[in-house]
Amino acid sequence: MKHEWNIWVVGGDQRQAQLAVQLARDGHTVHTYALERAGELGEGVEPERDLRGAVRADCVILPLPVTGEGTLLNTPLSEGSLPLAEVLDRLRPGQIVCAGLVTPPVAALADARGLTLHDYFAREELAIANAVPTAEGAIQIAMEELPITLHGARVLVVGYGRLGRALAPRLAALGARVSVAARKWSDLAWIEAEGYGVEHSGQLRGWLCGYDLILNTVPARLLEEETLRDLKPGCLVLDLASKPGGVDFEAARRLGVKAVWALSLPGKVAPVTAARAIKSTIYNILNELGV
Amino acid sequence: MKHEWNIWVVGGDQRQAQLAVQLARDGHTVHTYALERAGELGEGVEPERDLRGAVRADCVILPLPVTGEGTLLNTPLSEGSLPLAEVLDRLRPGQIVCAGLVTPPVAALADARGLTLHDYFAREELAIANAVPTAEGAIQIAMEELPITLHGARVLVVGYGRLGRALAPRLAALGARVSVAARKWSDLAWIEAEGYGVEHSGQLRGWLCGYDLILNTVPARLLEEETLRDLKPGCLVLDLASKPGGVDFEAARRLGVKAVWALSLPGKVAPVTAARAIKSTIYNILNELGV
Amino acid sequence: MKHEWNIWVVGGDQRQAQLAVQLARDGHTVHTYALERAGELGEGVEPERDLRGAVRADCVILPLPVTGEGTLLNTPLSEGSLPLAEVLDRLRPGQIVCAGLVTPPVAALADARGLTLHDYFAREELAIANAVPTAEGAIQIAMEELPITLHGARVLVVGYGRLGRALAPRLAALGARVSVAARKWSDLAWIEAEGYGVEHSGQLRGWLCGYDLILNTVPARLLEEETLRDLKPGCLVLDLASKPGGVDFEAARRLGVKAVWALSLPGKVAPVTAARAIKSTIYNILNELGV
Amino acid sequence: MKHEWNIWVVGGDQRQAQLAVQLARDGHTVHTYALERAGELGEGVEPERDLRGAVRADCVILPLPVTGEGTLLNTPLSEGSLPLAEVLDRLRPGQIVCAGLVTPPVAALADARGLTLHDYFAREELAIANAVPTAEGAIQIAMEELPITLHGARVLVVGYGRLGRALAPRLAALGARVSVAARKWSDLAWIEAEGYGVEHSGQLRGWLCGYDLILNTVPARLLEEETLRDLKPGCLVLDLASKPGGVDFEAARRLGVKAVWALSLPGKVAPVTAARAIKSTIYNILNELGV
Repeated sequence: MKHEWNIWVVGGDQRQAQLAVQLARDGHTVHTYALERAGELGEGVEPERDLRGAVRADCVILPLPVTGEGTLLNTPLSEGSLPLAEVLDRLRPGQIVCAGLVTPPVAALADARGLTLHDYFAREELAIANAVPTAEGAIQIAMEELPITLHGARVLVVGYGRLGRALAPRLAALGARVSVAARKWSDLAWIEAEGYGVEHSGQLRGWLCGYDLILNTVPARLLEEETLRDLKPGCLVLDLASKPGGVDFEAARRLGVKAVWALSLPGKVAPVTAARAIKSTIYNILNELGV
Repeated sequence: MKHEWNIWVVGGDQRQAQLAVQLARDGHTVHTYALERAGELGEGVEPERDLRGAVRADCVILPLPVTGEGTLLNTPLSEGSLPLAEVLDRLRPGQIVCAGLVTPPVAALADARGLTLHDYFAREELAIANAVPTAEGAIQIAMEELPITLHGARVLVVGYGRLGRALAPRLAALGARVSVAARKWSDLAWIEAEGYGVEHSGQLRGWLCGYDLILNTVPARLLEEETLRDLKPGCLVLDLASKPGGVDFEAARRLGVKAVWALSLPGKVAPVTAARAIKSTIYNILNELGV
Repeated sequence: MKHEWNIWVVGGDQRQAQLAVQLARDGHTVHTYALERAGELGEGVEPERDLRGAVRADCVILPLPVTGEGTLLNTPLSEGSLPLAEVLDRLRPGQIVCAGLVTPPVAALADARGLTLHDYFAREELAIANAVPTAEGAIQIAMEELPITLHGARVLVVGYGRLGRALAPRLAALGARVSVAARKWSDLAWIEAEGYGVEHSGQLRGWLCGYDLILNTVPARLLEEETLRDLKPGCLVLDLASKPGGVDFEAARRLGVKAVWALSLPGKVAPVTAARAIKSTIYNILNELGV
Repeated sequence: MKHEWNIWVVGGDQRQAQLAVQLARDGHTVHTYALERAGELGEGVEPERDLRGAVRADCVILPLPVTGEGTLLNTPLSEGSLPLAEVLDRLRPGQIVCAGLVTPPVAALADARGLTLHDYFAREELAIANAVPTAEGAIQIAMEELPITLHGARVLVVGYGRLGRALAPRLAALGARVSVAARKWSDLAWIEAEGYGVEHSGQLRGWLCGYDLILNTVPARLLEEETLRDLKPGCLVLDLASKPGGVDFEAARRLGVKAVWALSLPGKVAPVTAARAIKSTIYNILNELGV
């Protein structure tokens, strides 16, 4: 990045605070708003008392997810509550605004003001980068919850998308005996080519009795009561899939199966790394916009 | 595979011969034709003297590539030459025929006889499975050609498709310091997530002077004279890309750069494994056809 | 193990409780004493109210460490306190007794009663097996404490004994850039042969400013004030060495360096695995004694 | 290495030639003798016509092994033959001389002239460093000989010393299912801790029928006729042990088992890397001698 930009970071959690720090370290002029409780963010980061200067920003960065309740901006590190519309009203049509997880109503709010929200969370490269802290977070939880080592444990990863592909080699390298369940021929070919045991997502029932740990990454109810019934005592089920998740938690509770639904791990377990991934994605967006 | 099928394997190299052996071991009735020089293929494989019985086959398997010169069947393990049309004439319309690398003229020949050639080489799962023997073959050649160990060598993999993804972890595990060059943001994100050094395919010129080994997997002329000029003495260039390849071999020769174009490695370095991958793909095709 | 033995497990923590469970599953008759608070240990494990039957045991297993304060048996899962002498008095001369971390005064107590305590903790194979849960526990703590992922982190492992050798490949496989510090030529050769960066334990001062995480495994004060002063803000120091440890914690506190002394991890993070390792070691001892 | 030394490299194969090149690159003054057929060794390496100047060398480096037939110097890259005594006669008592594989008669020759031959091949760190090219060479041969990929192959490594420890992780990373055979409890504990299957060296008979590849590293006849008889057709046996080796080759021939005895791989498959390891070991020797 050759240019020094004027960037505003408005709202968000520790990731946004870290993002401000890192952007300043890269040499940009950084202003923050609605991040008061993030503490001192160091040289080059200017906390602002109002949004007046934002109109001059080369890029305004909104949180991930951009809104909390309704259309209030997501501002866990701020005292007050701030409608997103109030922020957008301060910007000029055509100004570059990046935001995470932009829903249709939010996009409409922006559109009405001649603004496009560039959704960094919709970008493939951020999803890939986030798979790493998510995988590490899942491994941390598994280590905390299990009375056995991952070394020697029999582990099933359900799904071989980005997250499955980040989980499997890490678990194997820690000494777990890893199988992966998928449905497509090509995914099954990858699972074999990368040396894991193969299970078929559509035929899990009756095949799960040997596992010590099951990590679900698919947002579809693959782990139903009938399937959970097979698990051996002490097997831990970690659901990493976004809503609606893949585990029937109600059934798990009834059956005495320990099941944990772990969401949004990157921001929780590695906010500095998560911020770095957002920063890199925003640079890509600006690069494509020819900034 | 529950059924016992009647399968004909017609023409091809050691892979086809091995395929016949493995199909027989799975319990199918296997007939071969135009594989005379493959030697004894063991119990359950019936070498035929003509194609008369082929019309009763549940599945006829033709070679990879299906044709050699012109529209002659590819029959390196047979004395005579056999026009593909002659084989197709013996089959009945609608009969299941699998073949590898079906070109439009070949497809037309089949079409004219009411036959569809199911191209197993066009299937994603075979391409994935073939990445493994290709990667091993490339590593074998690199070991043979280089006077240094891969351990400690600086290696660049150009391209992060199937083959790049099979090469990089193997090389890294052998102790090489691996970088991967790609163009797309998402590929670059994967390269970083999987812990390799990152290069940009579009900007190789001027960045290659440190490498001991360069493995190209992209069928586009990325390694031109200007780029090859940067290589340090003794650097080995292995081109694994199908035609037109990615290396200017003429320039390499002029510059004294050792460059090797290694094609069709699976059948050469691991025919038994290559046959296994074809068999598994054909089972998938039959499964989808509801056989 | 072909024989069914009569085994007494007396005192200890969750590892000893798990050991009783696992011995019973292997088909042995297991009696426990001073493990009341361990909960229900399942079929085949008989909790005893006194030590009268212990004299008939083929093997009596005492805790790790065998004594807590003074020469009291180490009984964290029991209400009362139990002098070790009282246990030994109940046994017959020559009876097989296994115990962990047997100090000279403890050995003398046994000797006076014609007993030899076979120290399972002194066995090389247990130390090796314990390196695995210790490494996993260290990784868990690092993940919990650091706001970055291990992926991409620069990590230094000090010492390349059993624990260093278990830590380095795990960290590397998680994507950390791992260096190892050692002193002996042969250890340095191994570090290089296994592909890690090399540091010299005797010359750490001035070389540590780049690391995000330092894991010490050497029970010698290598990380003094002068050395800790070099660390970059946010660097985490994990001391895994037994007493006296390798870190000047007082200096770390003064310098604002986050330093954690993590001891006895196997029993804390993976009691079931730790019990399995003890069991396997005790089987080796019995095997050597010709039982 | 701060000093510039005057070094003579006398006799030897491509490793010694490469050693001369690398020493010159490190800034030392290098003279060679009896390496005429090595070709041009580049700037800083002075080929000598006689040994007169050798007496002024800070260090004289003799080959590995130092002698070929009888007590002739090992000089495969020279036309003539050169008695070792003739070389030693040219040196002054107390001069530093390094040599590889010094036998008692050779040591006696030196002793008679007031010289000590420092045996670099006897050093632990060189043996460790050589394990890497030996492992790569073994993998190369296995890839060349087997019609299957190492990926998916069932492989047994016999022995878990330096070479076993270099082989197992490489094979596993290539996708092989690796077991290791050893005898000592501590080696067996390592094999388990590092995630390989466990076999017992003393009880191989009857357990080998599943393997596709067996790599022996133990110089003791563990693979006798009775054991070889169990192997499945096509299983490859690679003996990497120095004399007397570990395989009954006569029996293998009778049984139709393909067995290859591969010796001295580092110099053959990676002379540049092998030279680097020797150089580094010689630096350690000089460092210890306080040069």
